[in-house]
Amino acid sequence: MTIQQNNSSKPLRKEIIVSPSFHDVDPMGVVWHGNYLKFFEKVREALFAELHFSYKEMMESGYTWPVIEVQIKYRHPAFLETPIVISAEVKTYENDLKIEYEIRDLKTNKILTKGMTRQIAYDMRKKQGCLTSPAILFKVLGKECPYE
Amino acid sequence: MTIQQNNSSKPLRKEIIVSPSFHDVDPMGVVWHGNYLKFFEKVREALFAELHFSYKEMMESGYTWPVIEVQIKYRHPAFLETPIVISAEVKTYENDLKIEYEIRDLKTNKILTKGMTRQIAYDMRKKQGCLTSPAILFKVLGKECPYE
Amino acid sequence: MTIQQNNSSKPLRKEIIVSPSFHDVDPMGVVWHGNYLKFFEKVREALFAELHFSYKEMMESGYTWPVIEVQIKYRHPAFLETPIVISAEVKTYENDLKIEYEIRDLKTNKILTKGMTRQIAYDMRKKQGCLTSPAILFKVLGKECPYE
Amino acid sequence: MTIQQNNSSKPLRKEIIVSPSFHDVDPMGVVWHGNYLKFFEKVREALFAELHFSYKEMMESGYTWPVIEVQIKYRHPAFLETPIVISAEVKTYENDLKIEYEIRDLKTNKILTKGMTRQIAYDMRKKQGCLTSPAILFKVLGKECPYE
Repeated sequence: MTIQQNNSSKPLRKEIIVSPSFHDVDPMGVVWHGNYLKFFEKVREALFAELHFSYKEMMESGYTWPVIEVQIKYRHPAFLETPIVISAEVKTYENDLKIEYEIRDLKTNKILTKGMTRQIAYDMRKKQGCLTSPAILFKVLGKECPYE
Repeated sequence: MTIQQNNSSKPLRKEIIVSPSFHDVDPMGVVWHGNYLKFFEKVREALFAELHFSYKEMMESGYTWPVIEVQIKYRHPAFLETPIVISAEVKTYENDLKIEYEIRDLKTNKILTKGMTRQIAYDMRKKQGCLTSPAILFKVLGKECPYE
Repeated sequence: MTIQQNNSSKPLRKEIIVSPSFHDVDPMGVVWHGNYLKFFEKVREALFAELHFSYKEMMESGYTWPVIEVQIKYRHPAFLETPIVISAEVKTYENDLKIEYEIRDLKTNKILTKGMTRQIAYDMRKKQGCLTSPAILFKVLGKECPYE
Repeated sequence: MTIQQNNSSKPLRKEIIVSPSFHDVDPMGVVWHGNYLKFFEKVREALFAELHFSYKEMMESGYTWPVIEVQIKYRHPAFLETPIVISAEVKTYENDLKIEYEIRDLKTNKILTKGMTRQIAYDMRKKQGCLTSPAILFKVLGKECPYE
């Protein structure tokens, strides 16, 4: 068997621009630290929309991908009505789906925040988590599936 | 037929005490105006828990009660870590479920906010809203059902 | 004195498009009713950004505009990843600032939600609310100020 | 000088019980992963209230403690109206303030979630972060301050 590298031309990275709103900001005048997980989710949704695997398609696949771990490091605050660039990039997908995030100031390009989420596939029919990602995820990401 | 007034001894009013958190407060140092709907939902949940009609029981009844209207009047702000008393009282239930809310400062008893939510029953099997409340709501509220 | 009608060419209406996220949606699969106030705030911010009166300029004016009343009527639900058009239009500004909102489905143009917020000017130096809007608001909206 | 171990009798651990609300729960029927940071903040506030160092006292101290890092591991989901016990325990305080969290199901005592937040002191007058915690934090925690 020849291992054929099926290098995807599909984007595994996505950026969006968000301008934090009044309701995102805390009494110290900066984006509340918990709201970054909303920004991460927004860019993750944009990434998977581009891969034609939005929530609807995900539900139809029979699998969901619950978040099992998050990490965020806050270097500099984000401010009200000061646009930020939020990027998401898929880092691993064979067993868990690990996505890394970076938030930069749109104007200065300074890195403000770094983050990571880890998700695992959950089989809705079997009602259990999966030790390896199902074939559909490999297909969505444009990667060769090792066991199909 | 004698109309028998089945006056309920069940409480149709409930109070809870909440101490607003850092994440409830906006850059002006007061509870963000949209977060009051969370406080209203919390006290509404407490009221219906007491009536033994929590979300689980509601789902089993075959009906849900989506919110179709809200009104809030803000007189005075609520502050971080300054306890407030939130009350909910059922006002109508025959056709729609109208609940009125009041938020007072725990210490001074000053009224800070008044609000209202209106919900209608939605029949999950028929997949349509109900023009009159289903019998189960009358039972839950300890009221005589006019059409049963 | 001639009353000169200073009819503004400035837009007093603004639309934005939002695609509701996973974190906007409740267990019933529709946007949680309280999150509409975030959408209203987003379009209000976009409207005032266009009028060059963002939060920063507002704070420098010496006035803030706390929300003193909200009303929302929910006709049809909004769904995850189903784009909606949110409009805001200034309705009154002389004494209070009343803005009306409409949410429509982007694809079908069906009206989903209608809302209103009422704000009054608060003088940060005097630490009190204003019975009439300050001159700066008339200027921002491109309207003749009756008392200047 | 004798180094006298000032072992505190003050509690550096706190538990609260929370019953997740409808607005905490996502379309999959479980608490949305980002909302755990609200629960962590609630118990952290309860811990520091007990130490007489609430937000007001913190602001008066001239220091704030922005969150610079968070980690959460989700083992099992939390559900609507199913009470959970949330604990916070101070782990380090000399240079940064590291607090660890645990969420357990109230009934079964099963561990659902583990988390950590790291905060550093920020000197509001100097407008800069502190490499070591200020004396006031040692005092609040009932610990001997090494440099006073």
